[in-house]
Amino acid sequence: MERLRLLSELCFRNDSKILFWVFDGIGGVPHPDTGKTELETAQIPNLDAFARRASCGGLEAHGAGVAPGSGPGHLSLFGYPLEHFDLPRGVLEVLGAQQCYHNGKPCDDFALQPTDLAMRGNYATLERIGDRLVIGDRRANNIATESSDEVSRALSAGIDLDGYDVYIFPGKQHRFAAVIRGADLRSGLTDADPQRSGLSPRAVEAERPEAQHAADLVNEFVRQATEVLEAEPEANTVLLRGIGTPPSVPSLQELYGIKCAAIATYPMYRGIARLLGMDVLDVPSMSHEDQVKTLEENFNKHDFFYLHIKETDSVAHKGDFDAKVRIFEECDALFARALELDFDVVVVTGDHCTPSVLGDHSWHPIPTALWSKTVLSGQASALTERECLKGMLGRRASRDILPLALAEAGRLKKFGA
Amino acid sequence: MERLRLLSELCFRNDSKILFWVFDGIGGVPHPDTGKTELETAQIPNLDAFARRASCGGLEAHGAGVAPGSGPGHLSLFGYPLEHFDLPRGVLEVLGAQQCYHNGKPCDDFALQPTDLAMRGNYATLERIGDRLVIGDRRANNIATESSDEVSRALSAGIDLDGYDVYIFPGKQHRFAAVIRGADLRSGLTDADPQRSGLSPRAVEAERPEAQHAADLVNEFVRQATEVLEAEPEANTVLLRGIGTPPSVPSLQELYGIKCAAIATYPMYRGIARLLGMDVLDVPSMSHEDQVKTLEENFNKHDFFYLHIKETDSVAHKGDFDAKVRIFEECDALFARALELDFDVVVVTGDHCTPSVLGDHSWHPIPTALWSKTVLSGQASALTERECLKGMLGRRASRDILPLALAEAGRLKKFGA
Repeated sequence: MERLRLLSELCFRNDSKILFWVFDGIGGVPHPDTGKTELETAQIPNLDAFARRASCGGLEAHGAGVAPGSGPGHLSLFGYPLEHFDLPRGVLEVLGAQQCYHNGKPCDDFALQPTDLAMRGNYATLERIGDRLVIGDRRANNIATESSDEVSRALSAGIDLDGYDVYIFPGKQHRFAAVIRGADLRSGLTDADPQRSGLSPRAVEAERPEAQHAADLVNEFVRQATEVLEAEPEANTVLLRGIGTPPSVPSLQELYGIKCAAIATYPMYRGIARLLGMDVLDVPSMSHEDQVKTLEENFNKHDFFYLHIKETDSVAHKGDFDAKVRIFEECDALFARALELDFDVVVVTGDHCTPSVLGDHSWHPIPTALWSKTVLSGQASALTERECLKGMLGRRASRDILPLALAEAGRLKKFGA
Repeated sequence: MERLRLLSELCFRNDSKILFWVFDGIGGVPHPDTGKTELETAQIPNLDAFARRASCGGLEAHGAGVAPGSGPGHLSLFGYPLEHFDLPRGVLEVLGAQQCYHNGKPCDDFALQPTDLAMRGNYATLERIGDRLVIGDRRANNIATESSDEVSRALSAGIDLDGYDVYIFPGKQHRFAAVIRGADLRSGLTDADPQRSGLSPRAVEAERPEAQHAADLVNEFVRQATEVLEAEPEANTVLLRGIGTPPSVPSLQELYGIKCAAIATYPMYRGIARLLGMDVLDVPSMSHEDQVKTLEENFNKHDFFYLHIKETDSVAHKGDFDAKVRIFEECDALFARALELDFDVVVVTGDHCTPSVLGDHSWHPIPTALWSKTVLSGQASALTERECLKGMLGRRASRDILPLALAEAGRLKKFGA
């Protein structure tokens, strides 16, 4: 926070334009047959030429070995020190969820709102021992992801909190997240998960009087969930923790005086952008070309543009190496088109890596290229994982890239005379 | 501080000799015509050969994107974790000021003393609204630097605090710093700057009884300043903040048991050296040759030498790329002469970068080469921004270089058995 305050104090306004072109899950690991990653395989002459003119490096979103979800990944990318924002884990889970159910149906346009109560949960088993109900297995014996998807859909259909909407977000195996939406929901709740099997589940308690209504509602949620799941063979209760509303995060505009626009087509990323106070622009379709068109049309209206390409991540989650290569190749010409706008600073990066070979987010340094007219360039020969790490930026924290972009844009005064 | 304590505890004395050869503002960015920086352009065979024999890297004085002033830059270079020293911003501004007025005349030999009360300020405008005086513009409508220089001179002539000396240091546009020198001035004052236009200026208040006298004096300073500036068309008051005396910083000798000498010709750097407890040696002229001569003559008398070359920074501030190249070239032979002394460890570095192309301090990694008889060398082919970053030191914090030099000098015991 000290750091954020300093940066905020050093910032001043000018008329520079900054583009963050974010390939979700950009980086990969070598394909076992070729020894090359997706970026190393793709024919991307424009992105490669850009990397040669840029300062390159590899970003770590959350330190050694930690693969970030989309929420933490993006917050770090926009310079927020996660450990200093009291972001309930439930909020982070929801920001990163890939699937959402509402009233028993998939819900494709969920966007987290500041008054939503978010929580993460485990599907678990309850057992009767004597006259006590205790947790048999707090991970529902590692229930399969498919079953837990089904359970989530059932929960979203079965729970009825009068006057409140309930959204359920299935995760991997026993994991899920939930949101209760409605009036008068406040943070400040204890966990219901005792963190050990063999103990009784706890009721959620309010840590302050304003949160009492939320506590009551969450306990009712658990009661109904246990009823809905009574007949489920694999999981018959839920254990909730990390419950809270999204914190009020100072917006990028407040912090740095930049007017920000998000050009993202998927709800989650639009939600994150909104949380950070960006103007979320309408994109007429899901096509990347329409994203670039939206960028062109709005170029004069904002200082900072966040353009988010989702599909590199989606196909990598499915393990489709060739599809990820293809998406990079499709975006190459569009990226060149974006460069024709008169940007002062352009960053190509990601929120995290999603190697198709692993089929999930990873902890690897995020290949990143930062360009301005006066940047120290010339070390990386292409936009790849291995070439970028030869560049001037080196390996560093994701949260460094926004301050570096602001500095290259001439928006940071010096510290001390 | 934890770190500083550990290092201090591990230190022991031997008869090794260490040289820190500091080119102020050493690093640059590429010239738009040639794509080369000043260091890449200069013919500096001795410095290049030295880099090839050294461990090289790039130092960041204050993290990503932050261009340090000379005060913070030097403190980091000498291993002080800035965030743990309660250095009033006024002190940092004064340590970094380029110009000083005293009694209406330029004062070339100002050196900050431990009992000086330093403060930073804005020139601002006061307006009468009804019967209230409020701040019209707290940046004096971005008064031109030349006008603010004139206003500073006028202030230094017009303010008369009985028994106290007043020094005024003009900065860019509305910024200035001031020092009150005399008896019984203590830290612990609130800011007079309400940080928003449209509010009334505040009186400075003492946060502890010992500071009451200083508070009274600062308020009198503001009263007189407003009188002196009454007829000024652009700025008619001052807003003060960051007021305090230099903290007592443990000296390098106390911390590491090294007897330190500073060979610096400009007052600011002599002042910083004195703050850190160095012996500030007399140099017979401003010439670099006399600096090296002073080094030769005093070689036997100290353990650690800080030799500061100012001009690389001064000419870069003026945007004079060729002059900066020339100064590196002039210093090359002198550096070789210094190497003929029997140093155990030699570091070539800077307090920050000052690219001529940008005309101001920058945040770029500071090209740095560390040599000892047993150093791991051989990655950098020359002393340049881009070559140094290929070296063993990598990109790291400025505060790491002194511990590394002490270790190479065999002055650090191992930690734990």
